[in-house]
Amino acid sequence: MTPTPKNKTPTAIYQGLPPGIMPTLRVMPIPSDANIHGDVFGGWIMAQVDIAGAIPATRRANGRVATIAVNSFLFKHPVFVGDLLSFYAEVVKVGITSVTVNVEVYAERNRLEAETVKVTEATLTYVATGEDRKPRPIPPLESLTKAGADADI
Amino acid sequence: MTPTPKNKTPTAIYQGLPPGIMPTLRVMPIPSDANIHGDVFGGWIMAQVDIAGAIPATRRANGRVATIAVNSFLFKHPVFVGDLLSFYAEVVKVGITSVTVNVEVYAERNRLEAETVKVTEATLTYVATGEDRKPRPIPPLESLTKAGADADI
Amino acid sequence: MTPTPKNKTPTAIYQGLPPGIMPTLRVMPIPSDANIHGDVFGGWIMAQVDIAGAIPATRRANGRVATIAVNSFLFKHPVFVGDLLSFYAEVVKVGITSVTVNVEVYAERNRLEAETVKVTEATLTYVATGEDRKPRPIPPLESLTKAGADADI
Amino acid sequence: MTPTPKNKTPTAIYQGLPPGIMPTLRVMPIPSDANIHGDVFGGWIMAQVDIAGAIPATRRANGRVATIAVNSFLFKHPVFVGDLLSFYAEVVKVGITSVTVNVEVYAERNRLEAETVKVTEATLTYVATGEDRKPRPIPPLESLTKAGADADI
Amino acid sequence: MTPTPKNKTPTAIYQGLPPGIMPTLRVMPIPSDANIHGDVFGGWIMAQVDIAGAIPATRRANGRVATIAVNSFLFKHPVFVGDLLSFYAEVVKVGITSVTVNVEVYAERNRLEAETVKVTEATLTYVATGEDRKPRPIPPLESLTKAGADADI
Amino acid sequence: MTPTPKNKTPTAIYQGLPPGIMPTLRVMPIPSDANIHGDVFGGWIMAQVDIAGAIPATRRANGRVATIAVNSFLFKHPVFVGDLLSFYAEVVKVGITSVTVNVEVYAERNRLEAETVKVTEATLTYVATGEDRKPRPIPPLESLTKAGADADI
Repeated sequence: MTPTPKNKTPTAIYQGLPPGIMPTLRVMPIPSDANIHGDVFGGWIMAQVDIAGAIPATRRANGRVATIAVNSFLFKHPVFVGDLLSFYAEVVKVGITSVTVNVEVYAERNRLEAETVKVTEATLTYVATGEDRKPRPIPPLESLTKAGADADI
Repeated sequence: MTPTPKNKTPTAIYQGLPPGIMPTLRVMPIPSDANIHGDVFGGWIMAQVDIAGAIPATRRANGRVATIAVNSFLFKHPVFVGDLLSFYAEVVKVGITSVTVNVEVYAERNRLEAETVKVTEATLTYVATGEDRKPRPIPPLESLTKAGADADI
Repeated sequence: MTPTPKNKTPTAIYQGLPPGIMPTLRVMPIPSDANIHGDVFGGWIMAQVDIAGAIPATRRANGRVATIAVNSFLFKHPVFVGDLLSFYAEVVKVGITSVTVNVEVYAERNRLEAETVKVTEATLTYVATGEDRKPRPIPPLESLTKAGADADI
Repeated sequence: MTPTPKNKTPTAIYQGLPPGIMPTLRVMPIPSDANIHGDVFGGWIMAQVDIAGAIPATRRANGRVATIAVNSFLFKHPVFVGDLLSFYAEVVKVGITSVTVNVEVYAERNRLEAETVKVTEATLTYVATGEDRKPRPIPPLESLTKAGADADI
Repeated sequence: MTPTPKNKTPTAIYQGLPPGIMPTLRVMPIPSDANIHGDVFGGWIMAQVDIAGAIPATRRANGRVATIAVNSFLFKHPVFVGDLLSFYAEVVKVGITSVTVNVEVYAERNRLEAETVKVTEATLTYVATGEDRKPRPIPPLESLTKAGADADI
Repeated sequence: MTPTPKNKTPTAIYQGLPPGIMPTLRVMPIPSDANIHGDVFGGWIMAQVDIAGAIPATRRANGRVATIAVNSFLFKHPVFVGDLLSFYAEVVKVGITSVTVNVEVYAERNRLEAETVKVTEATLTYVATGEDRKPRPIPPLESLTKAGADADI
């Protein structure tokens, strides 16, 4: 039960996923997330994308954030019950009080065949908020470095 | 227990809501839809907006639709547990195989004071799909009139 | 993206719904609210009726209420996944510490055909409660008028 | 890990619960079943009562049933998160196509002190339904005895 | 609507369940707890077993507990949507700060035929925790007797 | 909006997570997965571990599996609402009809500070099942190689 690094590269195994970076979320929708035909609700995917995007936004803002806009959101392929979904969220822009995040979602459809499809692509903007729910300034990147944080994550 | 029309106008009562039109959905978020501060998750609102928009899209497409894009989505004000939310969804554009819907969300915040705030505004595009999940043409509006359907609803 | 009143009457569009009044809730049950045959659980409908009835009760009581009795509850027709349900809740009696509410539920079954059926009819009584969960008096109607509240809503 | 009968009587242990009979359901509500004050939603209790009542109704009807009426439903005391609830459902009347069930709910409030309170009392009527969702006759009690079923359970 | 003891023994009715003892929980899984084939998720059963085991652990510890280990957990038979599940939880060992509980789960499969199958058997250990989430000593059994508590329940 | 590889190593960023391997699941529990103190339910974690373990088991078995045993399960540290959880599942043993999987769970607690703690460690056994829910033989590893599958994933 020791940790399990070994000499393998995730790149080789997860064909079709972006190499060398960690997904922010990886989840598998269940029947209650879908209609009776097994198509996962668009709204469920939106909700997961919002959660995924909030993670790097919260890190960059060093505290609580609230979603203020979905700038774009494309459903390129349907998602099915049983797909394994990887959400890659990356900060793409930092404003005075806001953080914009790009989220890409890949589905590993057939778990043996390892067919991987980019199903969704979205850009969302979050605002950093204080105790009073009012916008607050995003701290400078340098102030975060002590903790080894990475602006993109 | 007879029906309850009476002589009143919804306009007078629901101050701040768009007069003379019916909300597509009206729902009240509960604590499990929110964080511990009582702020409703942005993702929960997105999921409800997607459901609301799909209703007139399904009617206009005369059958199943799938979300293909969120064109814009603005969170203008936070939503709290206990707000009563009205979703107004209206078809704004019909393409060969797609239907674009505008959704506006109003929150009645304080149920006695009846303060009403427009909290969210979004535009989504749905594609009409067949049994095989492939796009299919939107039927002409005339073909729907027999059933008394209304293109905007 | 301006508001969307226009010159139409909801009456004409929503054939079969009570004209001129606003539904308290409008929701669409999903597969996880139903059995495998697509029949929505009676208990799910009861829970929604309880929420709908609590809204005008809370307004009339000007504060928190708790359900104390279901006086009657009739399921006149089954409800199916995909029906759009409108809940009309109206205060029908005000006691010293209690508010009795009538709730009627209509299902728009086939979204194109716009067939509308009254599926459920119920009467529930709520008690106004204070911080200590003990009953408290319902305030006189006049004390609510400043805010433009309506006893029936 | 052998079975655990031993010589004890449930009567002695579960002070305040009806002696000698088995609860139909025993469940413990969690925070998401309650408001932020920890009071369990009336609607959640109604939904559980409906499930509990359907169990003996299904047995007596020897097949699928649908709720058609709540004849009475009293909330005698509030229910809190963490209460252990026992639902006792018993057939009280059998009609041509319907079964009426009485459901009583007891809460064990303080799990050490074993304070037990009857919180809810309800009577519901279910109709036996066939494949076509139409009412069907309740079979005679004798036809069920081969399986050792008990009309009250 | 008087209570309903009567002269019957649960033993006779619930053939196949352990006689003379009260189940800790009795629940019926619904479609959203299962895959599309109607097989209830193993994880859902684990979660219910954890809740069931925590009940006698909390009583014996006279306060809050946290799960620290699953010592064994056997799924002997599948569980299906519509099974009525009885969870029997019993304290089998008390340590300085921990309580070990055995949980056995029986499924009443066919509600008329009353076929009963032991589907799951598990042993879990809980630790008593204080306000600071640190382990605290289990109180001596004598200190609990005033309230008539029973170490096994 | 092109993919986002860049020249960075996940190792450097995700301090405290196993380097060079992909988590099977990455999820963030929300308030409704926890008690009112913010401690995530043990049962919720068990359910997620079961889902995570089933993913490599399904791949190795090249088809449906069912959980048959939890061999061990240690909760080493509490999990809180807002933790980002990574589940690493790896096949550790393959029998005639069964696959045993080790699952390790890491929590990134403070999202800026990136404190990472191994919170849970478990071993579960799954059985490969056929259409009839009966055990079926695990296919030889060679038969899976065409699809580029990896026995550990």
